[in-house]
Amino acid sequence: MPLKRKDILSIDALSCEEIDLILQTAESFKEVSTRDIKKVPALRGKTIINLFFEPSTRTRTSFELAGKRLSADVINISAASSSAVKNETILDTARNIEAMHSDFIVVRHSASGVPQLLAGVLRSAVINAGDGAHQHPSQGLLDLMTIKEKKGEIKGLKVVIVGDILHSRVARSDIQGLVKYGAEVCVVGPPTLIPSGIERWGVKVSLHMDEALVGADIIIVLRLQLERQSRGFFPTLREYAMLYGLNQNRLNLADPEVLVMHPGPINRGIELSSEIADGLSSVILDQVTNGLAVRMALFFLLSEGSQH
Amino acid sequence: MPLKRKDILSIDALSCEEIDLILQTAESFKEVSTRDIKKVPALRGKTIINLFFEPSTRTRTSFELAGKRLSADVINISAASSSAVKNETILDTARNIEAMHSDFIVVRHSASGVPQLLAGVLRSAVINAGDGAHQHPSQGLLDLMTIKEKKGEIKGLKVVIVGDILHSRVARSDIQGLVKYGAEVCVVGPPTLIPSGIERWGVKVSLHMDEALVGADIIIVLRLQLERQSRGFFPTLREYAMLYGLNQNRLNLADPEVLVMHPGPINRGIELSSEIADGLSSVILDQVTNGLAVRMALFFLLSEGSQH
Amino acid sequence: MPLKRKDILSIDALSCEEIDLILQTAESFKEVSTRDIKKVPALRGKTIINLFFEPSTRTRTSFELAGKRLSADVINISAASSSAVKNETILDTARNIEAMHSDFIVVRHSASGVPQLLAGVLRSAVINAGDGAHQHPSQGLLDLMTIKEKKGEIKGLKVVIVGDILHSRVARSDIQGLVKYGAEVCVVGPPTLIPSGIERWGVKVSLHMDEALVGADIIIVLRLQLERQSRGFFPTLREYAMLYGLNQNRLNLADPEVLVMHPGPINRGIELSSEIADGLSSVILDQVTNGLAVRMALFFLLSEGSQH
Repeated sequence: MPLKRKDILSIDALSCEEIDLILQTAESFKEVSTRDIKKVPALRGKTIINLFFEPSTRTRTSFELAGKRLSADVINISAASSSAVKNETILDTARNIEAMHSDFIVVRHSASGVPQLLAGVLRSAVINAGDGAHQHPSQGLLDLMTIKEKKGEIKGLKVVIVGDILHSRVARSDIQGLVKYGAEVCVVGPPTLIPSGIERWGVKVSLHMDEALVGADIIIVLRLQLERQSRGFFPTLREYAMLYGLNQNRLNLADPEVLVMHPGPINRGIELSSEIADGLSSVILDQVTNGLAVRMALFFLLSEGSQH
Repeated sequence: MPLKRKDILSIDALSCEEIDLILQTAESFKEVSTRDIKKVPALRGKTIINLFFEPSTRTRTSFELAGKRLSADVINISAASSSAVKNETILDTARNIEAMHSDFIVVRHSASGVPQLLAGVLRSAVINAGDGAHQHPSQGLLDLMTIKEKKGEIKGLKVVIVGDILHSRVARSDIQGLVKYGAEVCVVGPPTLIPSGIERWGVKVSLHMDEALVGADIIIVLRLQLERQSRGFFPTLREYAMLYGLNQNRLNLADPEVLVMHPGPINRGIELSSEIADGLSSVILDQVTNGLAVRMALFFLLSEGSQH
Repeated sequence: MPLKRKDILSIDALSCEEIDLILQTAESFKEVSTRDIKKVPALRGKTIINLFFEPSTRTRTSFELAGKRLSADVINISAASSSAVKNETILDTARNIEAMHSDFIVVRHSASGVPQLLAGVLRSAVINAGDGAHQHPSQGLLDLMTIKEKKGEIKGLKVVIVGDILHSRVARSDIQGLVKYGAEVCVVGPPTLIPSGIERWGVKVSLHMDEALVGADIIIVLRLQLERQSRGFFPTLREYAMLYGLNQNRLNLADPEVLVMHPGPINRGIELSSEIADGLSSVILDQVTNGLAVRMALFFLLSEGSQH
């Protein structure tokens, strides 16, 4: 069964059936990466363009490797070296790429809505690899995959998301996916970093980390963008770490089988203690492994869909 | 029939027979990029080095994709990260690359003559991807291909090239190709940006855009390097746009079947209005598509030639 | 016979039998790069990550091409664009990469010991592509290969290494290899650039270039890092060139069959005259060719080893 859509722009747009299909496909591709020859010919002769207007080694590498393990040709274009600096519009950049018969354009941009804009104009499949504070759907999917793998069922799980909710596309994608599957989601962080009205997304808000963590099945710790401090969102890193950093004492408040997740890269000792990052509850590296599998699944399913 | 030459350095050096062969070969490779599996094994096991001393995402991407669709291995080397910054001579850089048994070196450099210098010393085929204000032969070839495709015959066409002729390697390559095939070429632009003595290349010069456009079959609009203003070549962008920008009123002076071309990236609203860039006369994206096909043809024909 | 080790971290750690095996394997791979189709399927489906925290076009290109000629998938990660700037630890960066099932991590870092640190933690094979002033084992191996090819036997050769011994990982790797095989090694350079106690490595020290060169079979000229001058290690470039630059007069002091080597990139006219760099004694480009072959051999042998 193919995925009947051209693009992957947000978690919101996907039905649970579609997400189930993606995650099942990802599970089968996960096995490919454990083989002696980690390569299948599924996308031979297809062209994937990684169009990154914001730098991101880890996400770019994951998409690049996903494409290569499917035998696609992958071209990396980064903003610093791109025509963007030459006053070209984003649409012109993208149309130029498509004129070379690209099949997939994976786009990351600091402005929300850029992937949607491109998807509406291009024939190529567009995958949103992060747009502003809006969406990062492949991260949302890999988080759902990791939780399902470890917990079996998402419905009814108590999930706490900690940190800078306001600027986090990861939080937005995760919340949409978790609520869709019936998890109870609570967000916690400094009041300046919680968007007002977020309750309408179906989540609870807490300003007290210890309170929020009681009985948690999943704790998703967000990366703290260190430059937020200089912009006045919180007084000092030390205070942030004291009030919202996850350490062993706090972890003891959660369910004994709790999973700790983080989208990376980690600021050790700030939002997360090293003890926990490397501890038994941490599934952070599983997230990375699953991210690759999810991206292989997205390329494969969109490619299948385009042929029918 | 192979191309009996080692390098592609300028349009000037190519005979009409050679250009015809390149364009016919490009037409057949163009079809490859529309297949479901956009890949042929013609250059499997060959090594292409993109050696870019000047940044250029679009040209580098076109050569990279051309190489990959022919199944070659492609390595990108950009000046910023290259040993050039370490005081190494260009010849040493190139000889080092060749010592790893490269088959093709695609070189872009801000100094005129660098590709020629390398071609004289290296066994690898050298393709000039733009040297200073001198030549950009693959751009010249893709422009000829686009005109031939749309007009059938180049001889007798009235071609107007608008803009900064002085600094434009695109203009030089286009003029040489068009004159070779018997087109009537007229260049137009601010007097400070027209090289003196250019009439010797077989072109007419006009300082009045409206006059030049009357009855034009082809208008090639050059990109305006915005930094030229600060160097005093013209007073303001607004004035440049008024005097030399192509808009709908001006386009109406040309032949009704006129083609509008631009090497990209476009400064919309300066040298070209958006209306025209996206209009029915525009073949700008066809140029990009043909550029890829021309580059595949160059790799293929030079490779064939080297084996006989 | 496979190489029974997981990583290549230093020349010191390798036995002469292991080095012999690597160099024999490199000789057979050297032939691959002279074929019409320069590619073997040995590492199809393997993933090589070039993780370069220090820029190096030539070494990165050599490893990249070595991987591609063995049909591996190669991903380049450079520090500038990496998460390193985002406050992530090196170990986290590496563990993240490995979570995507990498087979090889080729690492270059300005700090000595980083490759060793990673090798102790990762399942992937780690190849040291240069760490601080410590080691650059693939350079040491390609130098041994070049000497063996040209001289047959290393034992008893008189080898002079000239220049900035203090900061040179190339010198350290070369000395360990040459002493292991029984060469007589003499280092020469400004007293500020000779590490104290270096005699314990089994080499002689000379401060007088002319004296040291008498009867030399091999002269390894090190690259002078030009910024050393501003740090006060020597007064002027001109004086350095006069006292330690290799020119024809000095070369005449050596054995008539002397070989001149240099790891590149060369500062022509400073540590080496152009006459000699391009002369009959120079094997500098052979070093580059052998470097590619040595890196193919390392990937191949480590890969074989991991399957038994």
